[in-house]
Amino acid sequence: MRQPFPFSAIVGQTEMKQAMILTAVDPGIGGVLVFGDRGTGKSTAVRALAALLPPIRALVGSPTNAATAEDHPDWAEPVSGKSHDVPTPVIDLPLGATEDRVVGALDIERALTRGEKAFEPGLLARANRGYLYIDEVNLLEDHIVDLLLDVAQSGENVIEREGLSIRHDARFVLVGSGNPEEGELRPQLLDRFGLSVEVRSPTDIDERVEVIRRRAAFDTQPEAFLKKWRAKDTKIRKAILSGRAALGSVEASDAALRDCAELCVALGSDGLRGELTLLRTARALAAYEGSDAVTRDHLRRVAPMSLSHRLRRDPLDEAGSASRVLRTVEDVFA
Amino acid sequence: MRQPFPFSAIVGQTEMKQAMILTAVDPGIGGVLVFGDRGTGKSTAVRALAALLPPIRALVGSPTNAATAEDHPDWAEPVSGKSHDVPTPVIDLPLGATEDRVVGALDIERALTRGEKAFEPGLLARANRGYLYIDEVNLLEDHIVDLLLDVAQSGENVIEREGLSIRHDARFVLVGSGNPEEGELRPQLLDRFGLSVEVRSPTDIDERVEVIRRRAAFDTQPEAFLKKWRAKDTKIRKAILSGRAALGSVEASDAALRDCAELCVALGSDGLRGELTLLRTARALAAYEGSDAVTRDHLRRVAPMSLSHRLRRDPLDEAGSASRVLRTVEDVFA
Amino acid sequence: MRQPFPFSAIVGQTEMKQAMILTAVDPGIGGVLVFGDRGTGKSTAVRALAALLPPIRALVGSPTNAATAEDHPDWAEPVSGKSHDVPTPVIDLPLGATEDRVVGALDIERALTRGEKAFEPGLLARANRGYLYIDEVNLLEDHIVDLLLDVAQSGENVIEREGLSIRHDARFVLVGSGNPEEGELRPQLLDRFGLSVEVRSPTDIDERVEVIRRRAAFDTQPEAFLKKWRAKDTKIRKAILSGRAALGSVEASDAALRDCAELCVALGSDGLRGELTLLRTARALAAYEGSDAVTRDHLRRVAPMSLSHRLRRDPLDEAGSASRVLRTVEDVFA
Amino acid sequence: MRQPFPFSAIVGQTEMKQAMILTAVDPGIGGVLVFGDRGTGKSTAVRALAALLPPIRALVGSPTNAATAEDHPDWAEPVSGKSHDVPTPVIDLPLGATEDRVVGALDIERALTRGEKAFEPGLLARANRGYLYIDEVNLLEDHIVDLLLDVAQSGENVIEREGLSIRHDARFVLVGSGNPEEGELRPQLLDRFGLSVEVRSPTDIDERVEVIRRRAAFDTQPEAFLKKWRAKDTKIRKAILSGRAALGSVEASDAALRDCAELCVALGSDGLRGELTLLRTARALAAYEGSDAVTRDHLRRVAPMSLSHRLRRDPLDEAGSASRVLRTVEDVFA
Amino acid sequence: MRQPFPFSAIVGQTEMKQAMILTAVDPGIGGVLVFGDRGTGKSTAVRALAALLPPIRALVGSPTNAATAEDHPDWAEPVSGKSHDVPTPVIDLPLGATEDRVVGALDIERALTRGEKAFEPGLLARANRGYLYIDEVNLLEDHIVDLLLDVAQSGENVIEREGLSIRHDARFVLVGSGNPEEGELRPQLLDRFGLSVEVRSPTDIDERVEVIRRRAAFDTQPEAFLKKWRAKDTKIRKAILSGRAALGSVEASDAALRDCAELCVALGSDGLRGELTLLRTARALAAYEGSDAVTRDHLRRVAPMSLSHRLRRDPLDEAGSASRVLRTVEDVFA
Amino acid sequence: MRQPFPFSAIVGQTEMKQAMILTAVDPGIGGVLVFGDRGTGKSTAVRALAALLPPIRALVGSPTNAATAEDHPDWAEPVSGKSHDVPTPVIDLPLGATEDRVVGALDIERALTRGEKAFEPGLLARANRGYLYIDEVNLLEDHIVDLLLDVAQSGENVIEREGLSIRHDARFVLVGSGNPEEGELRPQLLDRFGLSVEVRSPTDIDERVEVIRRRAAFDTQPEAFLKKWRAKDTKIRKAILSGRAALGSVEASDAALRDCAELCVALGSDGLRGELTLLRTARALAAYEGSDAVTRDHLRRVAPMSLSHRLRRDPLDEAGSASRVLRTVEDVFA
Repeated sequence: MRQPFPFSAIVGQTEMKQAMILTAVDPGIGGVLVFGDRGTGKSTAVRALAALLPPIRALVGSPTNAATAEDHPDWAEPVSGKSHDVPTPVIDLPLGATEDRVVGALDIERALTRGEKAFEPGLLARANRGYLYIDEVNLLEDHIVDLLLDVAQSGENVIEREGLSIRHDARFVLVGSGNPEEGELRPQLLDRFGLSVEVRSPTDIDERVEVIRRRAAFDTQPEAFLKKWRAKDTKIRKAILSGRAALGSVEASDAALRDCAELCVALGSDGLRGELTLLRTARALAAYEGSDAVTRDHLRRVAPMSLSHRLRRDPLDEAGSASRVLRTVEDVFA
Repeated sequence: MRQPFPFSAIVGQTEMKQAMILTAVDPGIGGVLVFGDRGTGKSTAVRALAALLPPIRALVGSPTNAATAEDHPDWAEPVSGKSHDVPTPVIDLPLGATEDRVVGALDIERALTRGEKAFEPGLLARANRGYLYIDEVNLLEDHIVDLLLDVAQSGENVIEREGLSIRHDARFVLVGSGNPEEGELRPQLLDRFGLSVEVRSPTDIDERVEVIRRRAAFDTQPEAFLKKWRAKDTKIRKAILSGRAALGSVEASDAALRDCAELCVALGSDGLRGELTLLRTARALAAYEGSDAVTRDHLRRVAPMSLSHRLRRDPLDEAGSASRVLRTVEDVFA
Repeated sequence: MRQPFPFSAIVGQTEMKQAMILTAVDPGIGGVLVFGDRGTGKSTAVRALAALLPPIRALVGSPTNAATAEDHPDWAEPVSGKSHDVPTPVIDLPLGATEDRVVGALDIERALTRGEKAFEPGLLARANRGYLYIDEVNLLEDHIVDLLLDVAQSGENVIEREGLSIRHDARFVLVGSGNPEEGELRPQLLDRFGLSVEVRSPTDIDERVEVIRRRAAFDTQPEAFLKKWRAKDTKIRKAILSGRAALGSVEASDAALRDCAELCVALGSDGLRGELTLLRTARALAAYEGSDAVTRDHLRRVAPMSLSHRLRRDPLDEAGSASRVLRTVEDVFA
Repeated sequence: MRQPFPFSAIVGQTEMKQAMILTAVDPGIGGVLVFGDRGTGKSTAVRALAALLPPIRALVGSPTNAATAEDHPDWAEPVSGKSHDVPTPVIDLPLGATEDRVVGALDIERALTRGEKAFEPGLLARANRGYLYIDEVNLLEDHIVDLLLDVAQSGENVIEREGLSIRHDARFVLVGSGNPEEGELRPQLLDRFGLSVEVRSPTDIDERVEVIRRRAAFDTQPEAFLKKWRAKDTKIRKAILSGRAALGSVEASDAALRDCAELCVALGSDGLRGELTLLRTARALAAYEGSDAVTRDHLRRVAPMSLSHRLRRDPLDEAGSASRVLRTVEDVFA
Repeated sequence: MRQPFPFSAIVGQTEMKQAMILTAVDPGIGGVLVFGDRGTGKSTAVRALAALLPPIRALVGSPTNAATAEDHPDWAEPVSGKSHDVPTPVIDLPLGATEDRVVGALDIERALTRGEKAFEPGLLARANRGYLYIDEVNLLEDHIVDLLLDVAQSGENVIEREGLSIRHDARFVLVGSGNPEEGELRPQLLDRFGLSVEVRSPTDIDERVEVIRRRAAFDTQPEAFLKKWRAKDTKIRKAILSGRAALGSVEASDAALRDCAELCVALGSDGLRGELTLLRTARALAAYEGSDAVTRDHLRRVAPMSLSHRLRRDPLDEAGSASRVLRTVEDVFA
Repeated sequence: MRQPFPFSAIVGQTEMKQAMILTAVDPGIGGVLVFGDRGTGKSTAVRALAALLPPIRALVGSPTNAATAEDHPDWAEPVSGKSHDVPTPVIDLPLGATEDRVVGALDIERALTRGEKAFEPGLLARANRGYLYIDEVNLLEDHIVDLLLDVAQSGENVIEREGLSIRHDARFVLVGSGNPEEGELRPQLLDRFGLSVEVRSPTDIDERVEVIRRRAAFDTQPEAFLKKWRAKDTKIRKAILSGRAALGSVEASDAALRDCAELCVALGSDGLRGELTLLRTARALAAYEGSDAVTRDHLRRVAPMSLSHRLRRDPLDEAGSASRVLRTVEDVFA
């Protein structure tokens, strides 16, 4: 059970880390897409996230990490009612996992031995109240991504197969990584992720040397390295917890709402998910940073991750969609 | 069990809401196709519809929500004969539902434990007397859409598979949403939907701000929000019920019949489903609004939703089929 | 158990109705193909046919509607020998019916519970001595159509699968509908249908209004409507029965045989199925109308439905194959 | 059990009938391919053949129609040793027959009830010592045709599947019909058929009238018709039997061998199957006609059916391969 | 159990017969590919080979024909230790053999009746110490050919499937026939065959007449024919046995090694399998002919069969790869 | 159990042998890709490697070769605690191995006989602490390669299928061979291999003669040959063991880190895996050769195998990526 690399020891990659923190503050923001070249530490960051997140309080023995007896699914064995703290689940969708193991399926063992048609929960049950990570999400078949996004959005896993008609809570943040050179997601799917960030290999020699140095230190002297970064990780965890508590009391003025709408109209983003996500993410940032209202600064800082995957491709604009978002922010907020 | 967004709180989208109401007045109109960009609230509207619809009276324990003992299927366990009010079913076809779970299948559990070849009903049984909603219907395989339309039209689900030869009532309105950019349905399938409507993102800033405001209110203070809109929803529900009662007594003059035929000939729509649906929908509108006869105004208002998906594509006409219908209405009624 | 629309109340569509009546007089003519646009009432006509046809006398409990003990299949449970009148079967091939349910299969229930390898008959057994209707036959896979035509032609269903080696009577008329815009059948398959007819939407306003009026009457006051048309349906049924009795005594002169052969040579139809069918259909028409010999008038009237699907496509002839047949009839009979 | 149309009552189609008779005299000639348009009576001829062929003497109860106890397969139930006359088997490969039922498979019933791994023979066992007929052989998948030709050539069916390792006699003549417009067989497969013939619709009016007349007579008065032709069928059957007896004593001179070789070299046919089949077929013809030696006349008459499917396609030669063979025969024999 | 055609009675086809003899002397040479037109007697030659080969001494009851108790596989039933002479196995891979039957699989019968997970050996076990013949090897899927070559090369069959982890001796010579017009093997696969030969139909009339004469004699008087050629077959068998004994003592001088290397470099053959096979085959030829050292004459005679399938295609060289090899031999040995 | 060819007797192929040795010193370097023409001895080298590697100490009876009781998987039968020396596992992925046997699966036998859902480990368990060899890795499906790389990188095999949720140690070095002419791996997959080397057939005659000579000696006198090379193999094995021990104490200066980073920036390699692998491999080389610090010479010698598969293809650079790496090394280190 080797310890993951510390979250705060990751060199650079500020946007990716920010997006992960904000979905920890408000999971309702939706999933995160991480685009980037191979070898830029995407998997490392997700595994680091697991160690950073605050624990959740769950009923002992509940397959969906239910917080209360009402949330405990009726198809599962009854629980005693005792609770305990468990790490926020960060579930990795392993390559080759069958759809059965993802959504759950008929429990063959109980069917054969006891003649009962029982449900055996899958990864989506285990991911409830946590994160589900998919490496190379663009290599998955569309209908699986669709299904995962559907469940993530509705917070409920509905199983209608093999004679089962089951539903259970499945509230999780979907984190998908992908290399845009290997094929892209359909716009329809892109739009259903809450946030998107891009990671790149650093081009600065000193930064690259720092990456090698920290990695070598972690490989050769893991204990010392982990100890060195523990405090920074703890600080982030505490800020997430206080952000969650403050979320309900952050104000969003009519001016902020209008900023959101005008920004999205100016960008020509389809539908209304853009402004809804922008506002929600800005509110989470404000809460994380201890502000009591959403400001233009908050909107400006989260606009690229909230909107850049919702733009139509502009073949004449080489700068990429993140900078198009930033430029439009400057125009609209001018 | 989170409450859905109130139907009447949906900003704009008048045509979509109208079409849903009219199929609630007369389910014989047939299914509704909702075309539109991503993020325009199609799913939200359907889920809102579930809360709006009047309850139905059904036998306790009947898998098809049968109203009377005669309608209760003979393959099911006998019922006591007691009835109760249940919400009008709005069944969601989840992604990844197997065909078995949709149409029903052999009950494996009873086959294994009791050695009986019993039928286990599927979603089509549950949808009887209600609605079946399919998100992204254009992504389904043609043969499934065909099957669903077949059942919806005949009102009966016929199962001939795995040694079963079963039939049961399956009278429901099929609501399908789709994004025309993601592939289209075959004209043959289009024609078998009763109505079609198109939804778009609002381009007016104030309207968009209103959407964000209501959504934020619903997210942060759901109880207050739901209470505020309850009266409006109730008013619609009552109008649906009185419309249903009046449906049989709405007159359709020979002149109205001739208007329907001339309109469809002028539009060059194939087959006769166009005029049959147009008349039926106009009659439902008249009943919903308390009129005792179908007028040209009723025909004019429902002509686009009844006919626009039945036109042949005209590549020279940029305005879209809905406006072609409206222009032809003006010519014919002139 | 809603009553179907009365056969004689169908507006127009004379050829289609004629073809169905003639195959009822002599099922040996073979199947009927109904081509036509969507929404032209093809399904309605077939369902109407079911109510029109005379009943057949069959052994109580026989899965193939056997008329005598010799015809009762040996794999089925023995029957008492009592007979009763049952409606002529009109079996609908539902979309999604598996090949097992069509041709029959191993009876899994008996295999599991009694350890016997019993046969469970399929739709082809039920269709014996009646009609099998396939909507959108052109969407079926070729090998299924081939199989159905094979069985229809030989009058016998031969099952060699899953360790079963079974045969049973399966004499039925295959009625297939199809939209030529949705893909065509191979010429090889076309040729194996006995007759073909084309249906179109009426273009005459009065006729269309009449369709709407009758449909609305049927929808709103079904009892009165059915009563009104019952006498006409009964008259047709009686003519079918007297036609069947007369069939054996209708003469076909050498001149009539020569007319058949010359007509087919002039049309350049491949093979000899054309003239064989033409003669047989003309004989059925003569019998239906009470004539004692086949005349040129009989041949002329059934030539289009007997031959038009057997012509090679002529790209320079816009008028369609039915009128090519008619023109050639005039030339040859001149 | 309706009687088939009499073989000798078939109008024209001399080559096809000849080929079938010769393979009945010497089954070692190999299979027959019948090419032709639809509706030319290919199936009728094969079914007629079944009634014409002489009976065979076989052990009662042997699944492979074994003539002697040595030939009776060891995997089958033991037989009493009594023999009886049975009709020469003419087995029809029904559309949709599974590979299991063709080659044989594990007997599931015995496996389940008695726990034994027994073999259940398929159509190839039933066809032993007779004919196997495949309609539209060109629509079968290549690997099945290959398998059937393999078995037909080796006279043995070898099963290596599902834990079975079984072999049994399977000496039969493969008769395949096909429409060349529907796709062709690979040259590799063509070459493995012994003979090929082509059938066409007659273009002569009198001949066509004769076809219609005989068919109508058969349809309306079957008993009288069958009686009328019985004598002719019996005469052919007797000639087949005396031909079989004489086969061993028909001489083939060195000059005849050289004729065969020179003819094949002149035609440029690949491999040596051409001359081997030509000689064998000519010998069968001589025996059938009571000659004691193979003459040039025999070779000339069977050359087209023995060789025309073994030529390379010549795009400049419109006359078809049969006439190319005939022309070359005249050159070589000049 | 009909006797095969005698090996020595095959007219011509010297190279093919030579290659088969040499792999009988030294099976380590590897498989033989036989290319050629249809109808050139490829299958006949392989079946003839079976009767020619010397018997092997094997343990009674060993599924892999093990020579000693150590070689007897541990998963099989124990053997008594007695040995007997059995014919060298020549196993035919029948069309439609499943992968299970080729490599072996779980013994379902024992699994069901005794609850044991036992291995049931397949054709590869039966072929141990003999030949495996595949007709039309180019029609097999690549991965099967690959698997067969892998086993043939390593001499061991490794099964990792269905919960089995089994290995057993599978030393055999793979003989594959193929028609180059029907698709070719990948160069990667070609290279893994030891030898390749090409067979053609003779074009000389006298030779063809001789083929027909011998075949006719074999067909009509098999006993006499077999007796006539027995002595020649026996002579070859003895030479194979003495060649095997002498193989170890045949010298290969450094000059011969250098000849091999220079020849392959001159031909530009990839990898080193060319020279390794060339040397080994020449050594087998020397041993078969009673020489005590490999000479240039031996190398020259086996160079075409050892190397011609390892050349890159040269589109400008019409003469074929065998003559390219011969020309290069003359250049290098000049 | 035939002995493999000795590792040190392989002629040439220095880079390939070096790469294999270095991954034996530090398995954390990752897998090795061996590119090369057919017949260049890739398989021979891997099989030779198995005999060269030092033994490992493992618990008797542990399916994953666990070193300690903590590492022994909890799903396996308990072990006694005794340890023994076993050869370093070199597991060959046989062609046709099913995914079940690779990753492990439900133990059907225990499921059937004991009604338990037990796990049966696959090849990945057996490969733990050793090597997994895949011949022609480029012919495997991408998702399998991906899965294998995933497991190799994480050192853990996670199984989520058939109702199992299992994980176990699977730390191994993946060695894949491939012929670049037969299709290439995706860049994404290439990058995840630690090292890559290219092997070619020698073009020098003397070297080729030496290959043939050694092979012939090994084939004809294996005992003597093996004995001759044993000492050289032992020397390498000892150096690997002392290298492993020294690995932790080899210094890597900041200058060396900067060299790594600058080299990768100059080469434009994506991501950071290049420099991380380069440093790690250089450290292994230093340890293997007894140096106490990484020098530029170490970096220079391992740069081609560490980096050449991570470059973008340069169509103008004919020299291949290995020489591009070398040239860049000279520039950067100048």
